[in-house]
Amino acid sequence: MEDISYITIPAGFKANGVASGMKCSDRANIKPDTPKYSYLDVGLVVSDTPCTVAGVYTSNLVKGHSLVRSIDIIESKKKVRGIIVNSKNANAAVGKAGIEDADLIAGSVAKELGCTGDEILTASTGVIGTRLPTDLITSVIPELVSGLADSEETAHNSEYAMMTTDTVPKEVSAEITLADERQVRIAGQAKGSGMIHPNLATMIGIFTTDADIEADLLKKMLKDAVKYTFNRVSVDGDTSVCDMVIVLANGQSGVKIEEGSEDAEVFAEALRSLCEDIARMLASDGEGATKFVEVEVYGAASEADAKLIVSAVAKSPLCKTAFYGMDANCGRILTAVGYSGAKFDPEHVDIKLSGLLVYKDGIAADFDEEEASRLLHEHDIKVEIILHEGDCYDRMFTCDFSHEYVTINGSYRS
Amino acid sequence: MEDISYITIPAGFKANGVASGMKCSDRANIKPDTPKYSYLDVGLVVSDTPCTVAGVYTSNLVKGHSLVRSIDIIESKKKVRGIIVNSKNANAAVGKAGIEDADLIAGSVAKELGCTGDEILTASTGVIGTRLPTDLITSVIPELVSGLADSEETAHNSEYAMMTTDTVPKEVSAEITLADERQVRIAGQAKGSGMIHPNLATMIGIFTTDADIEADLLKKMLKDAVKYTFNRVSVDGDTSVCDMVIVLANGQSGVKIEEGSEDAEVFAEALRSLCEDIARMLASDGEGATKFVEVEVYGAASEADAKLIVSAVAKSPLCKTAFYGMDANCGRILTAVGYSGAKFDPEHVDIKLSGLLVYKDGIAADFDEEEASRLLHEHDIKVEIILHEGDCYDRMFTCDFSHEYVTINGSYRS
Repeated sequence: MEDISYITIPAGFKANGVASGMKCSDRANIKPDTPKYSYLDVGLVVSDTPCTVAGVYTSNLVKGHSLVRSIDIIESKKKVRGIIVNSKNANAAVGKAGIEDADLIAGSVAKELGCTGDEILTASTGVIGTRLPTDLITSVIPELVSGLADSEETAHNSEYAMMTTDTVPKEVSAEITLADERQVRIAGQAKGSGMIHPNLATMIGIFTTDADIEADLLKKMLKDAVKYTFNRVSVDGDTSVCDMVIVLANGQSGVKIEEGSEDAEVFAEALRSLCEDIARMLASDGEGATKFVEVEVYGAASEADAKLIVSAVAKSPLCKTAFYGMDANCGRILTAVGYSGAKFDPEHVDIKLSGLLVYKDGIAADFDEEEASRLLHEHDIKVEIILHEGDCYDRMFTCDFSHEYVTINGSYRS
Repeated sequence: MEDISYITIPAGFKANGVASGMKCSDRANIKPDTPKYSYLDVGLVVSDTPCTVAGVYTSNLVKGHSLVRSIDIIESKKKVRGIIVNSKNANAAVGKAGIEDADLIAGSVAKELGCTGDEILTASTGVIGTRLPTDLITSVIPELVSGLADSEETAHNSEYAMMTTDTVPKEVSAEITLADERQVRIAGQAKGSGMIHPNLATMIGIFTTDADIEADLLKKMLKDAVKYTFNRVSVDGDTSVCDMVIVLANGQSGVKIEEGSEDAEVFAEALRSLCEDIARMLASDGEGATKFVEVEVYGAASEADAKLIVSAVAKSPLCKTAFYGMDANCGRILTAVGYSGAKFDPEHVDIKLSGLLVYKDGIAADFDEEEASRLLHEHDIKVEIILHEGDCYDRMFTCDFSHEYVTINGSYRS
């Protein structure tokens, strides 16, 4: 299978991305070899026909206006045609004007497409506290809509337009064979958890499928899919005001997926697997990341304890700088487990570093430092924490904390 | 008043610090201009006569062995003579041998002093998972004890011996006049929350006083004193397995402080104030810190909410990098308030940056960027978050996240 994925692989979807001037004010002088994600800043993904839609959103009490507007539409269970996303500006914390600005942009897209404004979802990512430059954005909407196509190039452009501090695009797709050889397609794209340049994490994920799925079932599948994937990515522990993941289902495959069917299980697993693929990409491409780190806990007394532990380790600046420094400073992991708030017996904790036992029964194991160093020089690192309290499991994806912060934090034991 | 403070200012205390070779293996070739904190590694603070003692300890489930031993002694309400502290090794996560090692060292001090081992508390700070080099430590104990004095120099040496990644010593003292012109003295010293080089934060604080105070009252005073001081310092959010703060009261002033008296209030306030002074020093000297940041919340619905908010802001890598970059990126503060877990109305949040209103009713205020920049170029930064939910207050001391981590994180808006 070719490893080329893009958002318009499912039937009946089109996409495009254009440069409004927010990322690069001098559009006329963009050089041919300039990466597209450094100037494309307004992206659009639409379906030829109305879609059911499901979404999950940030838990931050403060929510961006483009997001609030989309939540209202999605939760009303109306069908939609698509979503317009801009980078560089989060459209957050500007008051009532923020909703009006998002309405204006969606209305402008709707006019070009010949649908109503509330059929167009909005998402924004970037700096908060500054009004959207609606003039810039609306001025490129005719170009954005007229250029819509189901081509690989325009699909990638819609992804580039969402990217902020991401260094690589995140695109996935799958073709799924259901009962009676019926086929449906799912695709997804996201912008990542490099949290800094745009002021916010603002993870945004868009999935498309040509399956025919009721909104309630789609919502249930999406919620299950994000639980151990997007809800288990930590780059710097900050939770943005704009995070959102949606799935658009347009039914163009002619294949209906019913709740409780085996098809529903197959589809749900495919969606979950794609979410996991993107979640791993997000952590790997965390700001300044040089390592991908998967933290797992086994044998916790409760799901809550398991989550506390993986969160504590994945967020610990001390652990993350040790990963960067490739120093088997595993006392920091034990320390984070200890302050996580989870209940456990410190004398019955085992810790493995990429398979190597480094703590046994809460005591530092006599492991081979050279072997540990070799394992830490790999790009992918796995931390397993084994309690003996119960049978609950959790995991989290994260990255290291790199650079100078880390010439202090990561190198001391050498 | 001369601003020279040291731990032996209260009557009847002596101190010393020596080099065992843990920090610097080549003792013979230490140059005269080498800072003492780079080679002194074993410190001792003792009273001529037995002291009541009170302590507060890390909440980490995993606790260092030297600490566990001290907790047992302190909580038994036995009187003690003093405390021996080593840096470079946390004596943690090595199993039963850790307690035995601490006992051996305390016994060695006791033998020299002519007291019993359980009259000597132990504290260790440094790497975890490695046995204490007891040979090195016990070999210098005769020198350590014979050099005990109440001089400024030996007192400073006991502080230098505790320091790890600290760049400045943290010493405070006060002379307090009580009713009838009676005077008592309090002094304190600490090692800080530079969390990295020694593998752990391991904040250790030692206070001495020549007041005569029962252990229970002393404990109550200390618990009150640390609540908004040491329990409100965050450098990188990691909580060590060795944190401990103790107060030794030897009664040598002849002044008895009774529970419920006005003297007790005066003394408690003096102790609290000294704890606050040291807490500010700890945050200012956080690893790589270039800024001291005080985060305050007013008008929270509950104390729990107030604490959640100051913790979220003080721990946020995005806020802390913005402080380093001296960028008035106040959306990050609002974002941290939003994900803190506290309940509040996002449309009624005001935020001030060193007095400058940057958010009003949850909307970015039209503040003067130049003024904001000027305020952020000060060493001390204050963040005030004003909710309108109730009358609960909290505050936290922190520092910025500096260096390369921050050339990414702090400079984007320029």
